[in-house]
Amino acid sequence: MALVEIGNLIKNSDNFAIVSHTSPDGDSIGSMLGLFSALKEIGKSADMFIDDPLPEKYSFLPGYKEVKNIDDAKDSYSCLIALDCGDLDRLGTCKRLISKADIIINIDHHVSNSLFGTVNIVDDAASSVGEILYQLFKINDLVVSKDTSLCLYTSLLTDTGGFKYSNTTSVTLSIAGDLINTGIDFSEVYNQVFDVKSINQVKLMSRVTSTLETHFSGKIAILILSRDMLDDCNAREDDASDFINIARDIAGVEVAFFVKEVDSTKCRVSLRSRQFVDVRKIAEIFGGGGHIRASGCTISGSVQEVKDIIINELKKVIGVGC
Amino acid sequence: MALVEIGNLIKNSDNFAIVSHTSPDGDSIGSMLGLFSALKEIGKSADMFIDDPLPEKYSFLPGYKEVKNIDDAKDSYSCLIALDCGDLDRLGTCKRLISKADIIINIDHHVSNSLFGTVNIVDDAASSVGEILYQLFKINDLVVSKDTSLCLYTSLLTDTGGFKYSNTTSVTLSIAGDLINTGIDFSEVYNQVFDVKSINQVKLMSRVTSTLETHFSGKIAILILSRDMLDDCNAREDDASDFINIARDIAGVEVAFFVKEVDSTKCRVSLRSRQFVDVRKIAEIFGGGGHIRASGCTISGSVQEVKDIIINELKKVIGVGC
Repeated sequence: MALVEIGNLIKNSDNFAIVSHTSPDGDSIGSMLGLFSALKEIGKSADMFIDDPLPEKYSFLPGYKEVKNIDDAKDSYSCLIALDCGDLDRLGTCKRLISKADIIINIDHHVSNSLFGTVNIVDDAASSVGEILYQLFKINDLVVSKDTSLCLYTSLLTDTGGFKYSNTTSVTLSIAGDLINTGIDFSEVYNQVFDVKSINQVKLMSRVTSTLETHFSGKIAILILSRDMLDDCNAREDDASDFINIARDIAGVEVAFFVKEVDSTKCRVSLRSRQFVDVRKIAEIFGGGGHIRASGCTISGSVQEVKDIIINELKKVIGVGC
Repeated sequence: MALVEIGNLIKNSDNFAIVSHTSPDGDSIGSMLGLFSALKEIGKSADMFIDDPLPEKYSFLPGYKEVKNIDDAKDSYSCLIALDCGDLDRLGTCKRLISKADIIINIDHHVSNSLFGTVNIVDDAASSVGEILYQLFKINDLVVSKDTSLCLYTSLLTDTGGFKYSNTTSVTLSIAGDLINTGIDFSEVYNQVFDVKSINQVKLMSRVTSTLETHFSGKIAILILSRDMLDDCNAREDDASDFINIARDIAGVEVAFFVKEVDSTKCRVSLRSRQFVDVRKIAEIFGGGGHIRASGCTISGSVQEVKDIIINELKKVIGVGC
């Protein structure tokens, strides 16, 4: 269905439910709050639901506190709009709102989308759902206010990793330009979303990077995360989720791996490579998987044993073509 | 002079010298190599000069190795193009090429430019010289090849801090969109320019962040750099230049300061604030200066003494309005 027809559906409805996926990210939250803001501009009533707490770092976005608990949903909605959801299971408990709505509008950018809506806009060329919403708003002459822009900009920025990932297109950048022209403090958005860390994360980064080892003339870099470090820093394993990139981005490194102690009997391993080594093959040896440049697996043994096991596997491939 | 007239000047010249400022950065290098690439496309002869070594991290750019030593300059040039230079002194020893050229074209985006050229394009609304060059090339129907695009994109990206700084405009983003449409690997540019670190830098970051202290309920964050750390990590003080941001970007921090030991008798201090505290005033107490949100000074005393001196000054302002 054309964006103008979807626009007419929206203009002719009231009493909206807006839902998005569990484990919400910048695109699901930004697009939800951006749509909420745009609907308010034209006097519509809307409730927002996500079946998981919203990360604190998005609390600067207008409407952040208005996302409701599923138990506070009304008995019926004239129109439910699902954002950034490949299928209904991604909604978690919000899935049960589907049967309460007369029309389901499904807006997504995942090619695998199951097309569960009454009408579906699935554009896998779009960097983010925020990008699709902007086009929907413009073609239908809906106001894109400063508040709406702040939310949509957050969508674009986060799903492109700061306009860095290959899903960034000239359309994405052109829309980002329109959004910043509303006068939003886009530098502050970047800072809130990417730069701000908890003190525990910084402490954990210091501890984890202190374990840095390199092998094979600096081609392999290794980091370790023990349970003790998590306890000492009062941190969670997901506070360390980006640290593997610190090792991968050291000049001259081809493969980085990160050994995370699960308990005294086993470790999770994340692997990254830059140009040559297929790290999926290494993860697959241990029942794991992933991609050529990013993979993971779980291996029995202590941190030291698991580290040696991986070094041993890398010995077979490093030096061959790199 | 209009960009079309500058274009005609370029088309009617041959035998170019391209120069830029000392301590070259992404914009000076990217714009220089981008202009060199564009001139080659139309069959012009050009020599490039910068009076300082080019940072290794830009070595992925086409033409990087063709930047010459000033001693290899010809006796005369029909046209010298100066890029990103506010005044002639910024050229270092390359200044002496000025007298060897028939025409000086001065292209810059600093409002303070001394207009030293025969003709001058000074556009302080442009994020970068790369942005001005792109407009110059397009209006004059000069080819913007993939090589040229890679260089100009690097200019835009670096001078805007990854499209994060407030000098980013919708024009910047629109041009960035045109440049990525040539098929350049812009993700790799980002990675090379912003993410790649030396192993010594990572080791130093680990050591410096291990000194993290917070005071006044987490409103003040402090980092220390001792001479021993530099020696142990085989690193230089400028390897630590960004670390102050790690402290500033901790959630809840209002003021971060970084005490860098110069020798046993004195320390350099960098200060940053987020919203309220005027850190220039604090730096000025000790004969330093800077801006409201970023300042610096040098103070006599050991690391511990200097740290206490700054904490004592902050005690007077913290809690007042923040």
